[in-house]
Amino acid sequence: MRIAVLGVGLIGGSIGLAARGRLPDAEVTGFDPDPAALDAARELGAIDRAATSLEEAVRDAQACFACAPVGALPALVERALAAASADCVVSDVGSTKRVIVERVRDERFVGGHPVAGAETSGVANAREDLFDGAPWYLTPEERASGMLYERLHRLVAGLGARPLAVAPEAHDRLLAIVSHLPHVLANVLVSQLALRSRQRDERLGPVGPSFRDISRVAGANPGIWNDIYASNAQAIAEEIDEMGRGLAEVAARLRAGDAEAIDAWNARARGDRRRLLEADLAGGPVRELRVAVPNRPGVVAEVALAMGREGINITDLALAPAPDMRTGQITLWVTGEDAAARAEALIEGLGFPVAAVS
Amino acid sequence: MRIAVLGVGLIGGSIGLAARGRLPDAEVTGFDPDPAALDAARELGAIDRAATSLEEAVRDAQACFACAPVGALPALVERALAAASADCVVSDVGSTKRVIVERVRDERFVGGHPVAGAETSGVANAREDLFDGAPWYLTPEERASGMLYERLHRLVAGLGARPLAVAPEAHDRLLAIVSHLPHVLANVLVSQLALRSRQRDERLGPVGPSFRDISRVAGANPGIWNDIYASNAQAIAEEIDEMGRGLAEVAARLRAGDAEAIDAWNARARGDRRRLLEADLAGGPVRELRVAVPNRPGVVAEVALAMGREGINITDLALAPAPDMRTGQITLWVTGEDAAARAEALIEGLGFPVAAVS
Repeated sequence: MRIAVLGVGLIGGSIGLAARGRLPDAEVTGFDPDPAALDAARELGAIDRAATSLEEAVRDAQACFACAPVGALPALVERALAAASADCVVSDVGSTKRVIVERVRDERFVGGHPVAGAETSGVANAREDLFDGAPWYLTPEERASGMLYERLHRLVAGLGARPLAVAPEAHDRLLAIVSHLPHVLANVLVSQLALRSRQRDERLGPVGPSFRDISRVAGANPGIWNDIYASNAQAIAEEIDEMGRGLAEVAARLRAGDAEAIDAWNARARGDRRRLLEADLAGGPVRELRVAVPNRPGVVAEVALAMGREGINITDLALAPAPDMRTGQITLWVTGEDAAARAEALIEGLGFPVAAVS
Repeated sequence: MRIAVLGVGLIGGSIGLAARGRLPDAEVTGFDPDPAALDAARELGAIDRAATSLEEAVRDAQACFACAPVGALPALVERALAAASADCVVSDVGSTKRVIVERVRDERFVGGHPVAGAETSGVANAREDLFDGAPWYLTPEERASGMLYERLHRLVAGLGARPLAVAPEAHDRLLAIVSHLPHVLANVLVSQLALRSRQRDERLGPVGPSFRDISRVAGANPGIWNDIYASNAQAIAEEIDEMGRGLAEVAARLRAGDAEAIDAWNARARGDRRRLLEADLAGGPVRELRVAVPNRPGVVAEVALAMGREGINITDLALAPAPDMRTGQITLWVTGEDAAARAEALIEGLGFPVAAVS
């Protein structure tokens, strides 16, 4: 497969390395406005060849990844779509999805977001295994081509990630709490410690492991994070408000000396965390489901999003149109007996017949 | 040295293992109200022998560590002091220090707190290297015997930790922000994600690395944490209030779409974190300082606390009374040229002459 990577930093470079290292037929063309980054990417083996323009990189591609800070992505994706053929899926890797998906309306575009956090940046830190086992959110709209969505899903899985379909708004709300709010907390926490240190004229001594854990992401790369905060401000502000309410309740219980309430609160968090980890680690045997669907736009997105809403991980996905071209079949591979049973019920709930193949 | 360990769980067991593995002359006697834990500690080599009562364990000891949840410590330490000889230093390992230090008034007692976080508990998880490089706070009062404080300091350093003297109130305020507040945040955060998941009828999907980092300590061991919350409620509530103010400011900036203010805030956190890490990692050559001091109670605590306030790590410490018994010498080993210079100035500021030996 011919893959174009626009922007060969940490993420773009790792896409190139993973594609070249793991996909037998990958040919990766890179473009970057910074010639030094492009040279480095070629030297590191992250791309097969360097294009001299975005248009040259995209022209013959079957898949294109736009890799840039969130604020620059809509324009970059639009340029890529203008240069790409009708048979090229264009995706991006931005950490927020609502803004870009609202703006880019093209059946060849599917928003994407690999959750591969790293404190580093730049192609020199790119790694073939960066996405291994990591969630890679895909935000297909109804207009997205089913065939191109399938291609992107398999490609992303081939890079080592776990593709998971989710609506753009749900993605941004989820990330507001699992990623953006933790970054906000880390920032506020380190600055609060620095403030206390100044107020009390005490040097910052060695800090404990819980502080290190929680402050690891403080002051994350401003070039990336300023755009994330700007493009998801409302959802982040709502999560901050909720956090403030939760904290005020805890402070009130502490001041009241209500040991029982504190105990119950801590136990509740313990249970919530356990369920969270269990959901994150769910595994099991891979089950194959064959779904008969009408051959119309939006069906693949509809099925993928229904699974994503329930947290069901689609390990692999294949589309096959029937000879009459009015119906078709989606084959899904799902991890875990329980997830497969839920997937079957869900898809039948959408009105599509399912055959489970074991 | 004859060491008594009261309570042979994770911390007590690790003290035993480190003492037996690293101190050539250590003889560790353990006592625990749970006979099974005591048997396990002996089988694992964490203690040389098991005593049948607290009094038996403490009777001949030169150092005694009381290891129990914070709420049980004052009574345990008082029993140990009643059974111990005049030449035995008694310490504890509780995560808060103000309450116990206010209650226990004995020149043989010095509060202690090894910051060796582990998500596990029980002697089966004890490790000889649990304290390696970890801060071990000591909270000497003026009444504490200098000779016994020196013994405890060297013992703790011998176990692999970095002893650091701090006043009990300063300790509890510091821990409120570097440990207790992060635990509160983790609890509120996981419960908030669970709430959102219920409200939105979305399953908890895979979460990112920043969420895992920040929620690792959620719902920490209730048997330990309920006491910590209770004994430091006021300081924790104050840090929660401050956090709430900081968060409300960030939410307001996000809602105002003030990109410049967000950028400045993130950059400030970046700088604060860097300074924090630098303070934590400060190292360098070890310098020896000889301090002439009057031979009166409280001098050792005074010097150690002055160093602790400035974040200066005393690698080792030795006391030697002069023949006239009215003056004496404290020898301090300090890591880093800069720290040694600051230590020298500080101690001279206290009115004691210092000779630097290189």
